[in-house]
Amino acid sequence: MELAKRLSKLGTETAFAVSAEAAKHLEQGNTVYPFHLGDMNIKTPDNIIEATYKAMRDGKTGYCPNYGIPKLRQLVAEDINRSHGTDYTIDNVAIQPGGKPTISKFFMAMMNAGDEVLYPNPGYPIYESQIEFQGGLALPYTYHEGKDNFELDIDEIEKKITERTKLIVVNDLQNPTGAEASPQELEALADLSKRHDLFVLCDEAYFDIRYEGKSRSLASLPGMAERCLLLYTFSKKFAMTGWRLGATIGPKEVIDVIAKLNVNDESCSNHFIQYGAIEALTGDQSGAREIVNTLQARRDITVSMLNSIDGVRCYKPNATFYLFPNVTDLMKRKGFDDYGQFRKAALRETGVSFCTRLHFGRPLPGESQLYIRFAYSGIDVDDIKEGLTRFKKWLES
Amino acid sequence: MELAKRLSKLGTETAFAVSAEAAKHLEQGNTVYPFHLGDMNIKTPDNIIEATYKAMRDGKTGYCPNYGIPKLRQLVAEDINRSHGTDYTIDNVAIQPGGKPTISKFFMAMMNAGDEVLYPNPGYPIYESQIEFQGGLALPYTYHEGKDNFELDIDEIEKKITERTKLIVVNDLQNPTGAEASPQELEALADLSKRHDLFVLCDEAYFDIRYEGKSRSLASLPGMAERCLLLYTFSKKFAMTGWRLGATIGPKEVIDVIAKLNVNDESCSNHFIQYGAIEALTGDQSGAREIVNTLQARRDITVSMLNSIDGVRCYKPNATFYLFPNVTDLMKRKGFDDYGQFRKAALRETGVSFCTRLHFGRPLPGESQLYIRFAYSGIDVDDIKEGLTRFKKWLES
Repeated sequence: MELAKRLSKLGTETAFAVSAEAAKHLEQGNTVYPFHLGDMNIKTPDNIIEATYKAMRDGKTGYCPNYGIPKLRQLVAEDINRSHGTDYTIDNVAIQPGGKPTISKFFMAMMNAGDEVLYPNPGYPIYESQIEFQGGLALPYTYHEGKDNFELDIDEIEKKITERTKLIVVNDLQNPTGAEASPQELEALADLSKRHDLFVLCDEAYFDIRYEGKSRSLASLPGMAERCLLLYTFSKKFAMTGWRLGATIGPKEVIDVIAKLNVNDESCSNHFIQYGAIEALTGDQSGAREIVNTLQARRDITVSMLNSIDGVRCYKPNATFYLFPNVTDLMKRKGFDDYGQFRKAALRETGVSFCTRLHFGRPLPGESQLYIRFAYSGIDVDDIKEGLTRFKKWLES
Repeated sequence: MELAKRLSKLGTETAFAVSAEAAKHLEQGNTVYPFHLGDMNIKTPDNIIEATYKAMRDGKTGYCPNYGIPKLRQLVAEDINRSHGTDYTIDNVAIQPGGKPTISKFFMAMMNAGDEVLYPNPGYPIYESQIEFQGGLALPYTYHEGKDNFELDIDEIEKKITERTKLIVVNDLQNPTGAEASPQELEALADLSKRHDLFVLCDEAYFDIRYEGKSRSLASLPGMAERCLLLYTFSKKFAMTGWRLGATIGPKEVIDVIAKLNVNDESCSNHFIQYGAIEALTGDQSGAREIVNTLQARRDITVSMLNSIDGVRCYKPNATFYLFPNVTDLMKRKGFDDYGQFRKAALRETGVSFCTRLHFGRPLPGESQLYIRFAYSGIDVDDIKEGLTRFKKWLES
C-alpha cells in the first residue's frame, strides 16, 4: 500500500494538538481555561432547534438539491444583499456542509497547478494547506501593527504579484488577528484585484460577529461582486458550529461549478437542517443578539485583563471572537524564546490554554514580534476572570 | 475570470436531469411513477429522530472530533466486524458526512496523477468522475448476463491490468445492476488484487439492503482487510439519505490520512446526528427491518410485472433496490434505437420515469445489449402496479 504523493503537501489545523493537550491536563484533575478553541460554548437558539426537529418529523429526511433548498438559497442571497448592498439572486448561492467546504471548492474551481495564490499569514491554516495540496503556490502576505488594529501593507502585497498570480484570499475580520480593513484598505484591495485580474476568496465567516460599527465587504465595491466568491456560514452568528451548514455566494458561472462539485463530493447538505437555517434567518433574532452580547462582555474583560499584564499589547477588535496580543516583551522578560515552551508552561502553571502564532501558518522570514491567540468563544466571563488572574499572577511573579 | 482547466474532466450524476424532466411532467398536471430515484420515500425510524433531537437539546451543537465521536466509531467497527468477521477497532473508522465523501477521499489518499484505476461500468458515475478529475486514468470493467445475476469476467479484468494499475473500485451489491458476486468471484477478485498489489475501494452502500441470504464482503477474505477501504453509510439501511452520514473503514494508516482530509474539507461531520446514528445501531431495530420488508414487497411486484412485458428480461437481485432489465428486444420491437427517445416517450405516454444505461458511465465499445434502470426505493406498491400496468399496456399496444 502506498499513499498518494500529494499528501506530503497537505497541512492541517495544528490547533487540534493544543486541544488534546488541554484535555489531558483536565483529565489529570486540573482546571483548564480554554482560550484555544475556535468553538463556542454557547447553545444554538431554541427556535432553530425546534424548526429543525419539525422538519425531521415532517419527513425532510431524503436528499435535497445539490444547490440546497431554493427557499434557503433565496434567503441567503437576501441576507447578503441587505448587509452588502449587492444584488445576488438564488442563482448566486450554493448551500454547503459548513463554511470550510467553500475553501477547498474555491481552489478546485478556480486554480490550476502552478498558479500563485496570495493568502494571509498569520491566517487560517487551511488556505495554505489547500493551495499546496491542490498544486498551487502559496504566497503569504502579512499584517502589521497599526494604531488600533492590524493593517495591511498594500504595496508589499502588490510587490509579490507576478504574471502567475491568479487568486487572492481575503479574510477581513480576520482569524487570528481580529484585523478589520479600513475603507481605504478595502478600496486598495479592490483596485489591486482589478488591475491584476485576481479572483478573490472572501472568507466572511465572522461578518456578523460584530460589537460596534458595521461590517464591510470587498464584494460591495464597484466591479468586485463579479470577481469574489464569498464564504458564508451559519456556524458563528447562530452558534451552530457543529451543525455544519454554510453557503458559497458568487457569480452564477462559478456557483454552477461549485454545485457540480457538491454532487461529486457529498451529493447535498443535510436536508432538515436547512429548515433550521430558514428559521435562523427569518425567525426571532433575539438568540443571535444574545450571542453577540455574550461575546462582547467576554471580549471586554479579556482585552482589559490581557492589557493589564506587563509586556502584553492587545488591540480591542470590533468583530470576530479572537485576540492576537503581542507578547514579545513578556516572553523576553520571562525568559521564553520558544512559543511551544511558553504555551506549555502557561498551561502547566496556570491552566490557561491558548494557541500561538505557529498555529496560523508557517512563520515568515524576518518575523521579530511574538504573538499568541486568545479565543473567547468557548469560555465564560467568570472563568476568563479566574484564568487571567492566575495567568497575570504567574507572569508577574 | 477563468475556471480551472481540470473541470473539463469533472463528471456528474446525469440522473438529476431525469428528475428534472419528471418534475416538469408532474407540474404539467400529469401523474409520474418515479422509478428513476436513488432516493427513498420511506421515513427515518422515529427512535433515530428522537435521539437526534435529544442530542440537539443536550447541546451537542459544537464541533466534534474530525474522526467522529468515539462511541459511534466503536459501534461502526463492531457493526462491520459482526457482518464481515473482521477485527476492526475504533482506529479503523473515520465518520463522514455521507457515503459519497469516501469516494473522493479514497482517490485523494491513494491515487497519483497517471495511475490507472479499474472501476465498474455500468456503475455509479461518481467513480469515473473523481478518478478523472483527480488526474487518474479510468479503466472500465463491465458485467455480463449470467444465469440469474450479472457476473464479472475476472480474466477480462485481469487483461486490463498494466504496471500503472494501482487501484480497483468494487461495488458488490451493485448500483445499477443489482449484481452480487458469488463466493468464487470474490475469491478471484481477492486473488487478483493481491497478485497485482491493487488497493481496493469497497463501496458497500447496499450491504444491509438484503432480502434473502447473507451479504459477503471482499474485506472478509484472508489478507484483504489490509488492502480495502470500505464505504459505509447510514443512508439506505435506516432511510437516512438526506441526513448525510457515513463512515470510511480501513487500515489505520489510511484512516489517519482520511481524517486529515476531513479537517481540510469540512472539519467534522454534524455532531448531534451522530447520536441519532448511535441509536440507529444500538436501539430498536424494527424500523430497519420494516424498511427492508417494504422494499422487498416492492421488488417482488416490480420484477414480476417487468418480466411480464414482452421483450423484457429482468433478474431478481437479493440485495440493493435496483433492477437493470435488458430491453434490447423491447426497444427493437417498438422501433427505438435511442435510449433518450425511449425514456422520454415512456414518460410522456405513461408517466413511468426511469434511468437508462447512459446514466451509469460512458458506454463501452461494442455494447450490443440495451438496459434501463428501475429503482423501487421511491415508489409505493400501489403506484408500482398502476405505473407498470400503464407501461405494459403502452409497450404491448
